[in-house]
Amino acid sequence: MTYRLFIANKNYSSWSMRPWVLLRALDIPFEEVLTPFEGAGQQQAFTHFSPTAKVPCLHDGEQVVWDSLAILEYVAEGHPAAWPGDRAARAWARCASAEMHSGFAAIRDECSMNCSLTLDLDTPSEALEKDLTRLDILWQEGLEAFGGPWLAGDTFTAVDAMFAPVAVRIRGYGIELGTPAMAYAERLLAHPAVAEWIEQGIAETWIDEPHEADCIRGRRIIEDRRQRA
Amino acid sequence: MTYRLFIANKNYSSWSMRPWVLLRALDIPFEEVLTPFEGAGQQQAFTHFSPTAKVPCLHDGEQVVWDSLAILEYVAEGHPAAWPGDRAARAWARCASAEMHSGFAAIRDECSMNCSLTLDLDTPSEALEKDLTRLDILWQEGLEAFGGPWLAGDTFTAVDAMFAPVAVRIRGYGIELGTPAMAYAERLLAHPAVAEWIEQGIAETWIDEPHEADCIRGRRIIEDRRQRA
Ligand SMILES: N[C@@H](CCC(=O)N[C@@H](CS)C(=O)NCC(=O)O)C(=O)O
Ligand SMILES: N[C@@H](CCC(=O)N[C@@H](CS)C(=O)NCC(=O)O)C(=O)O
Repeated sequence: MTYRLFIANKNYSSWSMRPWVLLRALDIPFEEVLTPFEGAGQQQAFTHFSPTAKVPCLHDGEQVVWDSLAILEYVAEGHPAAWPGDRAARAWARCASAEMHSGFAAIRDECSMNCSLTLDLDTPSEALEKDLTRLDILWQEGLEAFGGPWLAGDTFTAVDAMFAPVAVRIRGYGIELGTPAMAYAERLLAHPAVAEWIEQGIAETWIDEPHEADCIRGRRIIEDRRQRA
Repeated sequence: MTYRLFIANKNYSSWSMRPWVLLRALDIPFEEVLTPFEGAGQQQAFTHFSPTAKVPCLHDGEQVVWDSLAILEYVAEGHPAAWPGDRAARAWARCASAEMHSGFAAIRDECSMNCSLTLDLDTPSEALEKDLTRLDILWQEGLEAFGGPWLAGDTFTAVDAMFAPVAVRIRGYGIELGTPAMAYAERLLAHPAVAEWIEQGIAETWIDEPHEADCIRGRRIIEDRRQRA
């Protein structure tokens, strides 16, 4: 029985991106089921497959697994390479993943993911500055402690998948971090699974106005990678 | 080497409560290190032991494990009884735990935990109603699917620890859910580990004004269990 992964638009859905990228990076076969956002009143369409009316949601036969982090843990039970093999690296990876899952609220709120746009962020808010400072420290710590090139060692694991959407935001909003963190963000964007997601996101023809507005917020658009007719 | 679990006031710190209750429930020895909240400007004291300046944080020798959910997973590596033994129950428990970790924002924001107080919630906001409806469905689903009396079967596991602070809130704010959920909340409050935490919370002599104000918000106080001089 192959996994069925329910996601929303690749261009916007940062939570969907995480398990998708992990499954691809680990070469785990799965069927993708994409339900596009439809402005407000989204909940209806998602309730057909997800108990929280949110994406992502994984179906494994009868087993329904909702929430990105729970999906990563579920996948890891069958595919231990999803987490680092080293005990300390694994503990660190889980902490960083959990911190991303419930934290970095300003990055998530103020820099909504959009694979297609490059914007001029202008002066970041105090909350965003704080999140970015913490992100920089966290990434540098992982890269130093476990030797890179990935966040918790020499293989791409779930913690890299958790931060993949952050790399999209760093590029999209022109965010500057320290040298090790910037190099890691570049590596993330160049990873085949991440690059494939982004490319498919840019190729989408749906435009979801609430998401577009949430990204733009009066910011200057530097580039829109979408081909418009 | 015994674990050292860094927590804040038992009366207020719902995130600290989760790993503490799990360790106690599983009879895992640990040393508790409690740093009380000190109004605003808290961050300073917590940075000495926690990279996010938040509690809880677990130290296992040199290994620092921050974030409640990552602590539960870390503990589970050495103590598999932390999650249900049954695969489907375990998947469900992880989903529900992850949902608690990043969701139920209105319950967390509008019904700040206070072990000592019983308040009159008055009319819940629309967001709170929505969270409570979802909570009711989720709890009932677990209890039915895995046969109770705990959320994912016949033993107390990490998912019960994740929801223990919610039981405190249900009692503290006089929240009404369906019969199975209310009975489960009562069972949680009566669990020895949960009851011990609450009792120690009530016995604390620190009063943190920001937390008190966040609970009260003009609501009528029905009971304050603290013995004041
Ligand atoms: N904690 C959840 C968050 C999921 C989430 O918020 N997904 C968004 C899309 S990226 C969603 O489904 N939004 C629709 C809605 O909230 O109605 C997870 O980690 O999976
Ligand atoms: N996602 C974290 C949340 C931890 C958290 O917010 N803890 C609160 C106390 S319950 C805290 O330390 N607050 C202090 C602060 O934010 O400065 C976890 O699951 O451990």
